[in-house]
Amino acid sequence: MQVEAGPLLQRINYPSDLRKLKVNELEMLCDELRQFIIDIVSVNGGHFAASLGVVELTVALHYVLNTPYDQIIFDVGHQAYGHKILTGRREVFHTNRVLGGISGFPKRSESAYDTFGVGHSSTSISAALGMAVASAYKGETDKQHVAIIGDGALTGGMAFEALNHAGIEKSNLLVILNDNCMSIDPNVGAMKEYLTSITTSKSYNKFRDELVAVLAKISKKGPDAYGWAKKLEQSIKGTLLKNANLFESLNFRYFGPVDGHDVVKLAKTLEDLKHIPGPKLLHAVTVKGKGYALAEKDQTKWHAPGLFDKITGEIKKSVSDKPQPPKFQDVFGHTLVELAESNGKIMGITPAMPSGSSMNIMMKAMPDRAFDVGIAEQHAVTFSAGLATQGLIPFCNIYSSFMQRGYDQVIHDVALQNLPVVFCLDRAGLVGADGPTHHGAYDIAFMRCIPNLTVSAPMNEEELRNLMYTAQLPEKGPFVIRYPRGNGVMVDWKRPFAEISIGKGRKVNDGEELAILSFGAIGNEVVKAVQLLNQEAIYPAHYDLRFAKPLDEELLHEVFSTYRKVITVEDGTLLGGVGSAVLEFMADHGYQAEIVRLGIPDEVVEHGEQAELWKLCGYDSVGIIATSKKLARSIRTDSMVS
Amino acid sequence: MQVEAGPLLQRINYPSDLRKLKVNELEMLCDELRQFIIDIVSVNGGHFAASLGVVELTVALHYVLNTPYDQIIFDVGHQAYGHKILTGRREVFHTNRVLGGISGFPKRSESAYDTFGVGHSSTSISAALGMAVASAYKGETDKQHVAIIGDGALTGGMAFEALNHAGIEKSNLLVILNDNCMSIDPNVGAMKEYLTSITTSKSYNKFRDELVAVLAKISKKGPDAYGWAKKLEQSIKGTLLKNANLFESLNFRYFGPVDGHDVVKLAKTLEDLKHIPGPKLLHAVTVKGKGYALAEKDQTKWHAPGLFDKITGEIKKSVSDKPQPPKFQDVFGHTLVELAESNGKIMGITPAMPSGSSMNIMMKAMPDRAFDVGIAEQHAVTFSAGLATQGLIPFCNIYSSFMQRGYDQVIHDVALQNLPVVFCLDRAGLVGADGPTHHGAYDIAFMRCIPNLTVSAPMNEEELRNLMYTAQLPEKGPFVIRYPRGNGVMVDWKRPFAEISIGKGRKVNDGEELAILSFGAIGNEVVKAVQLLNQEAIYPAHYDLRFAKPLDEELLHEVFSTYRKVITVEDGTLLGGVGSAVLEFMADHGYQAEIVRLGIPDEVVEHGEQAELWKLCGYDSVGIIATSKKLARSIRTDSMVS
Repeated sequence: MQVEAGPLLQRINYPSDLRKLKVNELEMLCDELRQFIIDIVSVNGGHFAASLGVVELTVALHYVLNTPYDQIIFDVGHQAYGHKILTGRREVFHTNRVLGGISGFPKRSESAYDTFGVGHSSTSISAALGMAVASAYKGETDKQHVAIIGDGALTGGMAFEALNHAGIEKSNLLVILNDNCMSIDPNVGAMKEYLTSITTSKSYNKFRDELVAVLAKISKKGPDAYGWAKKLEQSIKGTLLKNANLFESLNFRYFGPVDGHDVVKLAKTLEDLKHIPGPKLLHAVTVKGKGYALAEKDQTKWHAPGLFDKITGEIKKSVSDKPQPPKFQDVFGHTLVELAESNGKIMGITPAMPSGSSMNIMMKAMPDRAFDVGIAEQHAVTFSAGLATQGLIPFCNIYSSFMQRGYDQVIHDVALQNLPVVFCLDRAGLVGADGPTHHGAYDIAFMRCIPNLTVSAPMNEEELRNLMYTAQLPEKGPFVIRYPRGNGVMVDWKRPFAEISIGKGRKVNDGEELAILSFGAIGNEVVKAVQLLNQEAIYPAHYDLRFAKPLDEELLHEVFSTYRKVITVEDGTLLGGVGSAVLEFMADHGYQAEIVRLGIPDEVVEHGEQAELWKLCGYDSVGIIATSKKLARSIRTDSMVS
Repeated sequence: MQVEAGPLLQRINYPSDLRKLKVNELEMLCDELRQFIIDIVSVNGGHFAASLGVVELTVALHYVLNTPYDQIIFDVGHQAYGHKILTGRREVFHTNRVLGGISGFPKRSESAYDTFGVGHSSTSISAALGMAVASAYKGETDKQHVAIIGDGALTGGMAFEALNHAGIEKSNLLVILNDNCMSIDPNVGAMKEYLTSITTSKSYNKFRDELVAVLAKISKKGPDAYGWAKKLEQSIKGTLLKNANLFESLNFRYFGPVDGHDVVKLAKTLEDLKHIPGPKLLHAVTVKGKGYALAEKDQTKWHAPGLFDKITGEIKKSVSDKPQPPKFQDVFGHTLVELAESNGKIMGITPAMPSGSSMNIMMKAMPDRAFDVGIAEQHAVTFSAGLATQGLIPFCNIYSSFMQRGYDQVIHDVALQNLPVVFCLDRAGLVGADGPTHHGAYDIAFMRCIPNLTVSAPMNEEELRNLMYTAQLPEKGPFVIRYPRGNGVMVDWKRPFAEISIGKGRKVNDGEELAILSFGAIGNEVVKAVQLLNQEAIYPAHYDLRFAKPLDEELLHEVFSTYRKVITVEDGTLLGGVGSAVLEFMADHGYQAEIVRLGIPDEVVEHGEQAELWKLCGYDSVGIIATSKKLARSIRTDSMVS
């Protein structure tokens, strides 16, 4: 749904229009931009609180810098709605996150102002440094490079790697620390406590305001003056702000903290910083959800609230008379607590996704046994491995696409040592509106090639529970359980636990001529397809593989002894996925059959609703039916010929 | 070759023996241990300088701590030779890194004293924190957990993630910073400069010696005294050592710097630190190669020098009258400079492997265009992506197994954006003596599932040059070139460049009945095999695929139209590897053939010489011959039957 922008905002099609405004108009523009975001997200959905928090920063940056020549990179990017609206996409902003519409994240193919595609956290400093070094090499010494990174994203290890490198490069890099104490959930860790200690240091705060301006003026007077200014600065900071030198220790010049909602002062500060060379960090304090009282008060809830009544703040829920199946993540969360109550060895680990993974259920019920370790997938995995060496059974819950961040640790610290860490990969398969950066497309392929790992996927809630139950039994070794974003299929899901034999699939239904092998919850599309095919007198057998590794060889021998035509269905890449595992089995055992593999093709799948994307990729029930008919026809043609 | 230990060392079979020594015997033990390492490495090879640097730390730790109840984790682990010798492996130490012998790295399956398997850098703090949290949960409050990490490894992002988490846990964790300014090459980055500034701070150094002991004494007197001691400590440090609070900022208590070669004082300090609760960091300054003058002087050369004369320091080289083929890494290094001389867009990036990857050749020739970014694979990849957005063509050289660390960045920052970053994966395939942690076993599987990537492997030096030449031409997109550890096959390798069409393989030789498809340098084993098979009147055709992605479909159509029996050979995992890619092609095009895939099986392949391991896995020339004969026999049996 399109909404109307305020009078100032209506005139801003590009930052060049913004730069025509007078400084004293900026506050009003911020108000209008904020209102536009509220208006449009309330009726179209999307990320919310993060963009409200950086309205002033966004306006100030585009006002002061010469974008897109100057390069701005938003870390993670779910806070870039204001940026998108100011850079040519106001009129199409209502298509945000919709199939064929604009992306919910900055994207190079969408706009020259989107200098770097983002989605995962903590990449912005590395990318900006790359750009800055390139500019220095090309002699573009006036070019500005700015990474805007939250205090949550700053705890991701690669941000630190980038700071460590940037500190020895002389290139023109400004890191803006958007300090709001929040990721999706409240931030944790020593860095957060440290930043709080800075922002509450009163003695320094009295002096900081004038410091930047004075330094900028002095710096303009040439190298001698610059050296003198630097000494002065260090001496003042050394006296007043002992703590500030975490960043200064890494050769960054630290400025701030500044009020991230004072657009006029931000603009002035940014103007000054343009003239101070080398790596710099500006510490801006912001409020996530700023300007929408409810969002300020419950920032996790309003991170991406869905549709809501912007006046009352009531979040709209799809109403149904019937009880609905739960989300897979909630089945995980409740089941974990249930298992942990009877098995004292179980621990829970999440890298900054307590609410997204529903690990918050265990964190609340058993605070000494469930850990949010911050945006730190690598550490989450090896920390889990450390726990496992002491006889514990860690359930480490990481979104499939974020698991890519901890891949080496899965191999090196868990699998090679055969430690019983249970990886629960939420958001496996195509995730929908978040798009390519968040699709959990590759995990089957990149996990099943690792020795010692068991790789499983439940078709429904009951199987998820039973796989979790199975994984925590003794001697099961490292264990992957992948499941998709969204709801399952069982209203009555809380059933007694039963062990599943490792590597055993199950027959969902018998059939004739044709067999369909599915892996995971996408098997429910097969169920739908089979029902409809039966009405047309096509009777595919359906097997739920449950394990991509080890494969159920008994089941596969049955399938390939019985059926000449086989379809595999998976919510994951076709290259090296479970279908390929089946091909490997066939080759190793000399089976020959016509086999069609359905799954994610070898291309970047864009954003849209999950069901739309499954359809596009040809593995929703419609695609399965079409493929089944084609194979069934060929069977019948074969029979006629023979 | 076995060597004799000194009289004290001969009595030490386990740390319990060590703990019977008097404090004034420790220095002599250190001398003997150091000499033993020199004696044994000079005749058996292995890592050298790192272990010499931590002799005193190792002795002091096992003297003071109650190992293996107390847990010591050596980061990376190539410095753990002293640890192995003191913990039950002195008599077998001459089997170090040999097939069937002990591992060159700590390994849980080898000894209870090896609490955590290592090999890759920066994992130790995460693992130790996991152990410490587990101990706290289990009520083992007296248990000590120590991570020994170099200043190089500390720049790896996951070490920072772990510090950030550890700073808010109250568990009993000691991080010993082994500060020697070196990785394999000299360390780089802002952190290194920072640490140097600490160690040279004279005013603090006067006071630091007494501080730890006093604090430990006060701390023992109970919580009140502890609080008072903490305040005192902060006040002293705040006055004298403004910089030291990078670690203190993260809630670690910082102690040091101490002389890492004064074993008596180290033992005393460690004893004191046992009584100070919570997360602590002890900064020990050491010299890599300590006690062997030549190694102290050229630490990179002596990191792992091979065999040498311990008296003269002469490093033994295999002498040959004939000129030898070069190492693949050197072909990379020289070719990169050659290409960069004519293409101003080319940049070079290495994460802390200048000498191992031969990137040092470009760093020397073109210092403004080649970057050592520190132990920071994640940053290396995204920094390269940033460069690429500005029209440059970065060659990012990362060992195959370390590439696992930057996997998310390859997908998220390079491939999804289709940026022309060239990944040169050295040490792809089985690497030999370094063993499981370093085998480049998985890259074909985990890379070929990523959209937009080209995945290639040269069979020889000329192909490596031509693939590099091809990758830097316009519009080639992201490009992977994998090649193995060790030498190639061409003495006369410096030939003119020729473009290779993307996705085109080549026929090495025609044949009859049977085709062998190889990927990469392992194809040279196929050449050997074919020559020998020909002598027995078996004539396999041999194709060099060159690309795992995109596949050469024309070539494969030819193969499967012509041959009913096919062997694929790759120096990589069989699960999802290039053989599986061929199976996918067959399934997609309805080909049926008997196909045997040779490569790394789904298990952990241990250490040994490369050729020994290929043989064990059945894909050296002997294995290829055996498989070929089996298939050829079955062809002939078929023919007789039909």
